[in-house]
Amino acid sequence: MLLQAREYEEINRILATRLSEVEARFKAELLSDLEPVNMLANHVERYRGKMLRPTLVLASSAAAFADRAGDAVFQDAVVTAATVAEMVHMATLVHDDILDEAEMRRRGATINHLRGNEAAVMLGDYLISHAYHLCSSLPSASASRAIAAATNTVCEGELLQLHHRGDWALTERTYFEIIRRKTASLCGACCRMPAVLAADRADGGGDPVALALFAYGEKLGIAFQIVDDVLDLAGDSDQVGKTLGRDLAKGKLTLPLIRHLAVSGTRLPEVDTAGLDADAAGVLCEAVIAGEGLDYARERAMTLVADAKQTLGDAVPDSPARRLMMALADAVVDRQA
Amino acid sequence: MLLQAREYEEINRILATRLSEVEARFKAELLSDLEPVNMLANHVERYRGKMLRPTLVLASSAAAFADRAGDAVFQDAVVTAATVAEMVHMATLVHDDILDEAEMRRRGATINHLRGNEAAVMLGDYLISHAYHLCSSLPSASASRAIAAATNTVCEGELLQLHHRGDWALTERTYFEIIRRKTASLCGACCRMPAVLAADRADGGGDPVALALFAYGEKLGIAFQIVDDVLDLAGDSDQVGKTLGRDLAKGKLTLPLIRHLAVSGTRLPEVDTAGLDADAAGVLCEAVIAGEGLDYARERAMTLVADAKQTLGDAVPDSPARRLMMALADAVVDRQA
Repeated sequence: MLLQAREYEEINRILATRLSEVEARFKAELLSDLEPVNMLANHVERYRGKMLRPTLVLASSAAAFADRAGDAVFQDAVVTAATVAEMVHMATLVHDDILDEAEMRRRGATINHLRGNEAAVMLGDYLISHAYHLCSSLPSASASRAIAAATNTVCEGELLQLHHRGDWALTERTYFEIIRRKTASLCGACCRMPAVLAADRADGGGDPVALALFAYGEKLGIAFQIVDDVLDLAGDSDQVGKTLGRDLAKGKLTLPLIRHLAVSGTRLPEVDTAGLDADAAGVLCEAVIAGEGLDYARERAMTLVADAKQTLGDAVPDSPARRLMMALADAVVDRQA
Repeated sequence: MLLQAREYEEINRILATRLSEVEARFKAELLSDLEPVNMLANHVERYRGKMLRPTLVLASSAAAFADRAGDAVFQDAVVTAATVAEMVHMATLVHDDILDEAEMRRRGATINHLRGNEAAVMLGDYLISHAYHLCSSLPSASASRAIAAATNTVCEGELLQLHHRGDWALTERTYFEIIRRKTASLCGACCRMPAVLAADRADGGGDPVALALFAYGEKLGIAFQIVDDVLDLAGDSDQVGKTLGRDLAKGKLTLPLIRHLAVSGTRLPEVDTAGLDADAAGVLCEAVIAGEGLDYARERAMTLVADAKQTLGDAVPDSPARRLMMALADAVVDRQA
């Protein structure tokens, strides 16, 4: 997520250093004395993408806790928390690919496709276990508590989504409830994490800055998931780097579809847990692309990003790090992959 | 695991009270504001069996930290840790059933059979996340660190076992490495947990009592898994309450089979990741039952239990709680289910 403009030079340099520390810590923490375990764990390195979640932790720290810039213990804890966030995210990707029966991720084969669902279940568990293990290396339990609270919510979102598979009457309200939990809660927790560490309280101490950081991350996360859902329908498979059209195939109703069904009056069988067959999905997909569902979803995402920026701007003073967070929010809706 | 004899009356009463606290805390911690999540989570209540792992935490506390009996904060932390142990165990059962394609557990349908693998993946994640969340409610991170270290090892054991699926040349040495990690490490961690809480160190402070409690739990855990593997081959399906013969069907070589293949000179294709077909598995199963593999495995389990008792007896003074732990070890090899 690093930006090129000259004004970001200093903050980019700091973030790049910290992100490479995150990568090194990630690798070191997963190392096992068993070679078959290392072979499998190494595969997830190839899943590494934009590193959005650790970037959120690091940028929030730089923007809101500039006074702790010289505090080596605090900075080390922030890097640990950023690594934990990336590990949790990787675990959810590995388990998500089982749920979606996805064959491709970041232009490579998924673990479930390559080594079977069993290996993917266990590799995801291995990642989540190591994430909690690394987090509990911090002296206080408050970061562990905050991360586990976020993963509780992520799992609730995933379970709610599963419950509504094939529910073609899914409302916008429930859709937003699902994505707030499954995607946005972790982004919010990432942004609040420096406040959690600073206050040594799992809720970040409840001060206005902690609340604003969480709200910024949550709104950004909801927007991010909407864009993901738009790209699943209308993205370029080569650019996105993963199997597209999985949402319809797995009976998952997303915002562009919900909007399209509502305005076009298209009727689908109310409950169909098997998902649409390929032909029906193709026809529906074309109709959504021709209709207004995609634009509607993109506009909702843009409004959320504007809100996120407003929230951040109201609580955190201007700085290169804050401007970087503003640009991060814009990048969430501008991305093609 | 409660025992009936008169000498256990007092310790039984204490354990029964604590175990019902564990059940209540388990239920309360899993409660969600989403009804579909609660419906699924309630299903695991039906998986509850002997409650071996929380019993190990509680009995170790009573046997080795009798001086803390009146310390309400310590006792509360012990009950929390016992609940965490049960939750971690339940999570491994839910994910194990996916790996084993098991249809029955504790005389009921498994989640994967009833609701699909996707729901089972997410329910297991929900349980493990809540286990870490509950554990991080303790003021210090050392219990979280100890639990996460144990789950790291459990996952390694599961991944090593997966790697050796269909490896009909599996050695006893690797078999023991697998079961030490996947089963015994958590039992060891349960027994050491009161020492972790007392010393506020994830390794239990390294004193002889902590080491002995871990060694007792680990040996008991290895014996427990050997007996599980014996029952999978030669148990009574009604009594055991789950699908039997899964090990052979999934290409998992266990101690009775390893021994049988070694002494009978039976040759199988060296690697066969698909597992044996039902007919071949049936013939092999009959041959193992007629041979000496089962007795050999049972004897190894009995030796381990004797070792576990010796280790405990050397480090912890005699008391009703210690005698209960001795009886627990015996029950591990005597069980038919």
